Amino acid sequence: MSDKKLKLGIFGFGCVGQGLYHTLNETSGIKAEIIKICVKDRAKFRPFPDESYFTFDLDEILNNDEINVVVELIDDSDVAYSIVKKALQKGKAVVTANKKLIAEHLEELILLSKEYNSPLLYEASCCASIPVIRNLEEYYDNDLLSSIGGIFNGSSNYILTKILEEQLDYSTALLEAQEKGFAETDPSFDVKGWDARYKLSIIITHAYGLFIESAKILCFGIDQISEGDIQYANEKNLSIKLKACSQKIGDKIVAYVAPFYVKKENPLSTVNYEFNAVEIEGAFSERQLFIGKGAGSYPTGSAVLSDISALSYDYKYEYKKLTQKLKIEHSEDYCVRVYVGFKNESDVGFSDFEEISETYLGAERNFIVGTIMLQKLKESHWQNNKCISVIFIDGVGEFVKSNAQDILLESVG
Amino acid sequence: MSDKKLKLGIFGFGCVGQGLYHTLNETSGIKAEIIKICVKDRAKFRPFPDESYFTFDLDEILNNDEINVVVELIDDSDVAYSIVKKALQKGKAVVTANKKLIAEHLEELILLSKEYNSPLLYEASCCASIPVIRNLEEYYDNDLLSSIGGIFNGSSNYILTKILEEQLDYSTALLEAQEKGFAETDPSFDVKGWDARYKLSIIITHAYGLFIESAKILCFGIDQISEGDIQYANEKNLSIKLKACSQKIGDKIVAYVAPFYVKKENPLSTVNYEFNAVEIEGAFSERQLFIGKGAGSYPTGSAVLSDISALSYDYKYEYKKLTQKLKIEHSEDYCVRVYVGFKNESDVGFSDFEEISETYLGAERNFIVGTIMLQKLKESHWQNNKCISVIFIDGVGEFVKSNAQDILLESVG
Repeated sequence: MSDKKLKLGIFGFGCVGQGLYHTLNETSGIKAEIIKICVKDRAKFRPFPDESYFTFDLDEILNNDEINVVVELIDDSDVAYSIVKKALQKGKAVVTANKKLIAEHLEELILLSKEYNSPLLYEASCCASIPVIRNLEEYYDNDLLSSIGGIFNGSSNYILTKILEEQLDYSTALLEAQEKGFAETDPSFDVKGWDARYKLSIIITHAYGLFIESAKILCFGIDQISEGDIQYANEKNLSIKLKACSQKIGDKIVAYVAPFYVKKENPLSTVNYEFNAVEIEGAFSERQLFIGKGAGSYPTGSAVLSDISALSYDYKYEYKKLTQKLKIEHSEDYCVRVYVGFKNESDVGFSDFEEISETYLGAERNFIVGTIMLQKLKESHWQNNKCISVIFIDGVGEFVKSNAQDILLESVG
Repeated sequence: MSDKKLKLGIFGFGCVGQGLYHTLNETSGIKAEIIKICVKDRAKFRPFPDESYFTFDLDEILNNDEINVVVELIDDSDVAYSIVKKALQKGKAVVTANKKLIAEHLEELILLSKEYNSPLLYEASCCASIPVIRNLEEYYDNDLLSSIGGIFNGSSNYILTKILEEQLDYSTALLEAQEKGFAETDPSFDVKGWDARYKLSIIITHAYGLFIESAKILCFGIDQISEGDIQYANEKNLSIKLKACSQKIGDKIVAYVAPFYVKKENPLSTVNYEFNAVEIEGAFSERQLFIGKGAGSYPTGSAVLSDISALSYDYKYEYKKLTQKLKIEHSEDYCVRVYVGFKNESDVGFSDFEEISETYLGAERNFIVGTIMLQKLKESHWQNNKCISVIFIDGVGEFVKSNAQDILLESVG
C-alpha cells in the first residue's frame, strides 16, 4: 500500500469520527482521502461540508473497490463485527477503535487478516492517545514483560476524581462524565469495569501472546463503592483508582480489573479526570509509566489517524509473542489483598480469607481488610451484590520491592 | 537486512555493553550474534566467557566484512564519531547510545546514513528505556507537537532526590550516584545540565524537524543550588527537578535546560532517583507523560537491543519532520519566571527583569522571583557564577490552562 493513496470509507461520524475528520484536515503530511461516510441516523445534523459524502448503506463502502481502508467507528459491536469481517475478506485494510469488537473476536480477526492479507490496526481501542499496542509490538517485543496494567477507563477515572477530589456524589459525577462525552452509551461498560477489561484482554494478547476471553477476567466496578469506602480513603489519605492488572508469574498469567486504594505518593494518584495510565514492567526496561488522555474526540481521533498513517508504509502487527507459541495460561491461583465493605455480616464469608488484618463493625459501616485467593473472590459473587464493595490494596506479591528507588511505582502496602 | 542474520561488532564493554550482552543472552526471539568486542583497557577483567572475542584494534571490527552491525557504546565521543562515520561509510548499520556524538554530528551523520544506505539508530541516547525517539518517529509523526521536555538526566535527578527527600548534602549525593553507575565519567555532563541538553537537541530534531546546536541552548545546572534554595523548596512544599524544555510557538522553537521548582501535585515530583520522564504535548493527542528508568546497565542495554531488533526488519528513522522542510527557527524571545538566589546584590541586574514579584534580602540568603526574557538570562552569564543559582518556575506562558483537568501536568504557577 506504500505507493497507493489511502481511500477511506468511514463507518460512524460521532465523537471519534468527527475527531478523526478534524485531525486529518489539520495534518498536511498524510496522503489519505475520505471517500464515503456511512451513518445510521438520517435526521442528525453533522458538521461536514458536503452531504453527498454520507450514505446509510453499509455496502456502499464495502462494495466500493476504490476504498482501500475501512475505518470502523460505530457504537454497536455486533454490526461492527460484521463490517470488519466483510472488509477484511474484501482485502481492505481496517482501522477500528472498537475494544469490545476486538476483545471478543481477536483470534478470528487475526486469522482473517492473515488469510486475506488485509492489515487490521486498533491502537485507539486501548487507552486512546497512549501508544500502548504499537509499543508492545515494536519496542517491548524483546523485553521479558512481567506485568502490564494501569488506569484504562477515562470515564470511571473522571467519576472517581470528581468524587474523591471534588466531593461530588456518584450520580452527579456520572452525569458530568456523560455530558463531557467520555462515557459509553451504556455507562455499565465504564463503571462496571467491562471497558477496562476489554482493553486488558487485548493488551494481554500483545504483551504475553495469550488470548483470555474478557468475560473470564475477574472484574469489580466502581458502582458499588459506598460512602464508607470513600471515608476509609479520606481517613488514610488514599485515592481510589479503577485499575486493570496483569502479571506473568512463571508460566501463568493472572489478570483482574478492580478499584484500588492508591497512596498519594504513587504517580497513579496524580492521574486524574479522563486521563489514562499504562504501567509496564519488563525484565530489562524495568518499570515504565505512560500517562495520556484515554477518551475524547481528538485524543481518540489522533490515535485512529496514527493507524491510518501507519498503513501508508504497510505497517501491520506481527504478533511476535503469539507466534513464539509460549506455553502460558491464565490462572487465578493468586493471593491479593482487599478491603471489603459490607452492610450485612452474613453476606461475607470470613473463612474465605487467608488472613484478616483489619475488621471494623459499626453503626454506619462495616469492613474487613485481608488477603484472599482470586478464585475465592470470583466464586464469592460479590460483584453482583449491591451491599458489598471490593477495593484492592496493592502490595502483596504484586511487585518485589528491593530498595528506596522502587517507591516510584509502589502503591499501598 | 531482513533475511540476513545480524552480526554484531561492539565497541565498549562497560556498563551498557554488559547490559546489552545480558539482555541479548536472555532474549530468544532475536537473531543476532556477537562477532567481536573492541575495548581499550587490556588489563581490565571482563565478565564474558570467551576472551578470543575481544580486540583492541578498531579496524578488526570496521574492516570485518562479516560484521553488518556496529554497536557503539564507548565513552569518548570523539573516538565514537570516527568509528560511527567509518562504519556508516562501509555500509554497516550503526546503533549507538552516545548522546554527545549524536547531538554534535546529527546533521552530518544523517547525510552519511542516506549516502551509504546504512541505517543509524540511537534510541538509547535519549532517556534510556523510554522509547521517545521511536514514538516521535512513528506515532507522533502526524500530530502537531507543541511541546516536549521533561526530566532527561537520571544522575542529577538521583542527586536532587537524595538532597530533597533524604536531606543528603550535594557531594555525598553525587558520590552515591557515581557509585551506582548513573553518573557520566565527568560529572559536569550531568550536574551542569549538558547531558540533558544533548538529549533535548536530538529530540528537537525528531519533534520539530530543526537542528539546534546544543551549545546554543540556554542551560543551568544543579551544581549551583544552595542551601537557601533548598530551604525555599521546603518552605513552599516544592520539589526541584532538572528539566529540559522545548516549545513551539508559531514558527519559533524555544528551548532551555534548568532546575525547576515543581509542585507536589505535579506527576513530575513523583519521578525520583534515576527515573526519567518525557512530557509530550500535541494538538490532538494532548498531554502525555512517559516515565521510566533513564540510566543503568539493563534499561540502557534493553534500548540498544530494541534498536538491534528493529534492524532485523530493516527499520530506519524517516525524519519526516525534517523532510517537510518546515520554516521554523530557534528563538529566545520568550519570557520565563525564575527564582534567582545570590550572595551579592551587585551580581544581579534587577533591571533585567520584566517584573519582580518577590524580593528577600537576609543574613543567610537572598533571592528574587520574577519574569525575565531568555536572551537576558543568557547574557547574564549567571551560569558561570558560583554565587548565583537560577531555578525556573513553571506557569508563565508555558501551558495554557483551560480548566480543572489540566492540573495533571500543571506545574508551579
